[in-house]
Amino acid sequence: MAVQENDMNEAKHGVAALPCHGVWAPALTPLDAELAPDAERFVGHLRWLLDTGCHGVVVFGTTGEAPSFSVAERMALLDAALDAGVPADRVMVGTGCPALSDTVALSAHAVARGCAGVLVVPPYYFKNPPADGVFASYAEVIERVGASGLRLYLYHFPRLSCVPITPELIARLVDRYPGIVAGVKDSSGDWDGTQEYLRQFPDLAIFPGSETYLLPALEAGGAGCITATANINCGAIRSVFDTWTTEQGDAATLQDGVTETRRIIETLPLAPALKHVVAHYRSDAAWRRVRPPMVALDPAAGDDLVAALEAEGFRFGRP
Amino acid sequence: MAVQENDMNEAKHGVAALPCHGVWAPALTPLDAELAPDAERFVGHLRWLLDTGCHGVVVFGTTGEAPSFSVAERMALLDAALDAGVPADRVMVGTGCPALSDTVALSAHAVARGCAGVLVVPPYYFKNPPADGVFASYAEVIERVGASGLRLYLYHFPRLSCVPITPELIARLVDRYPGIVAGVKDSSGDWDGTQEYLRQFPDLAIFPGSETYLLPALEAGGAGCITATANINCGAIRSVFDTWTTEQGDAATLQDGVTETRRIIETLPLAPALKHVVAHYRSDAAWRRVRPPMVALDPAAGDDLVAALEAEGFRFGRP
Repeated sequence: MAVQENDMNEAKHGVAALPCHGVWAPALTPLDAELAPDAERFVGHLRWLLDTGCHGVVVFGTTGEAPSFSVAERMALLDAALDAGVPADRVMVGTGCPALSDTVALSAHAVARGCAGVLVVPPYYFKNPPADGVFASYAEVIERVGASGLRLYLYHFPRLSCVPITPELIARLVDRYPGIVAGVKDSSGDWDGTQEYLRQFPDLAIFPGSETYLLPALEAGGAGCITATANINCGAIRSVFDTWTTEQGDAATLQDGVTETRRIIETLPLAPALKHVVAHYRSDAAWRRVRPPMVALDPAAGDDLVAALEAEGFRFGRP
Repeated sequence: MAVQENDMNEAKHGVAALPCHGVWAPALTPLDAELAPDAERFVGHLRWLLDTGCHGVVVFGTTGEAPSFSVAERMALLDAALDAGVPADRVMVGTGCPALSDTVALSAHAVARGCAGVLVVPPYYFKNPPADGVFASYAEVIERVGASGLRLYLYHFPRLSCVPITPELIARLVDRYPGIVAGVKDSSGDWDGTQEYLRQFPDLAIFPGSETYLLPALEAGGAGCITATANINCGAIRSVFDTWTTEQGDAATLQDGVTETRRIIETLPLAPALKHVVAHYRSDAAWRRVRPPMVALDPAAGDDLVAALEAEGFRFGRP
């Protein structure tokens, strides 16, 4: 009954009509002692994220240290999660690599496994590539995957990729591949730019890359957010979304709470800090491991982080 | 006889005592109609480079569009070249990838095939990685390859990798892995920085990434150069090296000539421009192909380039 009301209100706001919506966590990638992906801990973490508030999870986003793993490692870990019963329609897969052939292989694999979509960062080694080259990078992936079930999300993270997803690029891709190009994850932190995406592409699912912009994005027609912090604060972030969709409660106050948690954690390198927090609350030091070039958070800094979060009322995973 | 004299003079200048030396070309990667590496054209180009002046070739450097190809594509193309008889001791292999596992796999393969060395760019997705993380990236590669025959060249190209190879990093790696860490390719274009490498690490093979600095580098104890332009101007660049080592002729004037050729070509995107020049002189339009995100040179711009080169006396491959 509650779910039905919820669905109805989402539809009223239009968010349910988007290709994809809600609060999605780019999942951390736990590692074993050899710094290889740890499938058992990974599956457990995905289940916990989906059970405690996430509409979906992104496997191998930036927070998941995606670029630090080979194509074979990435496919094997996705297979392990899906084979263990994680529902594919709640899984988006980060597939963007510098090599066209790698992006094609990972994207085709995700589509074959029935995943909700692929999140594709542009090739990021060469700087200032020509606009035609960036367009061709995406067009070749779409043509070579050659699947009507492909749902491609463009990943705008100019600070790391150094290759912006311009409105001109989006317009050209949407025109050529309508329905296939499904949305944008905007990790720029530039709210003006996000608003421009929202204005120009109301039919795409636009996800800010931080919950700081969750409520403003929803009010402007956005899809929700795909945010690293959801790895530890999924319940509270979900409450913002639910309160907004159901109009039952004070979404703005809840938004202020998750923004404050984000502000505290953003002072540190995100993946190592989030892994420290998970390790702390699960009493499982293995969770602290990261792959080079990342370095595990200094334990003292991690303790200070947990103390700072708790001083603001943070409760791991819970609203 | 000439060769012996040459060797003797090289020894006198100390350059022959370095782990590796001379004029090396980071080879262009020709593509077939599907934009896959074209082994036959590649082998022909490597042979031509080695026959017309290059001491050695780098397979899969930046000019070879290395990041645009998968690990499997890179291994297969290297195998094709070596199986066709290209001498492994004149081949250095670019193996640096964002993923530790990929860098290890490519480096182990190059060592197993007896290649002269591996050229390793640091993981380049994450920006401002901690110094310990960059060190660990290289240390893990060396430890996991675990071969005394490994000769690792650090690739300093901060404009593209965004992760500089600092003298502190080099000192730490050389101290931990003496003999394994063999040199640096410096593509920064910052001559002050190159001089600092030369001063601090006289036993390493320091290669500027442009022939513009060939003579100054040799005079300061450098190893030679690894330069994109050698793909088309190998003979002339080699003449600078030979004239300097044999002290027979005016190396400075020859240096001015190759610097001028470089200046002309540097106004354009290097790999597409060089591929256009190769296509022109081989009357083989297939050579113009590049993989996204690169775009083939506009043919009119290519014609202008060839005209500008010839106006300065450029002769494809020849001194």
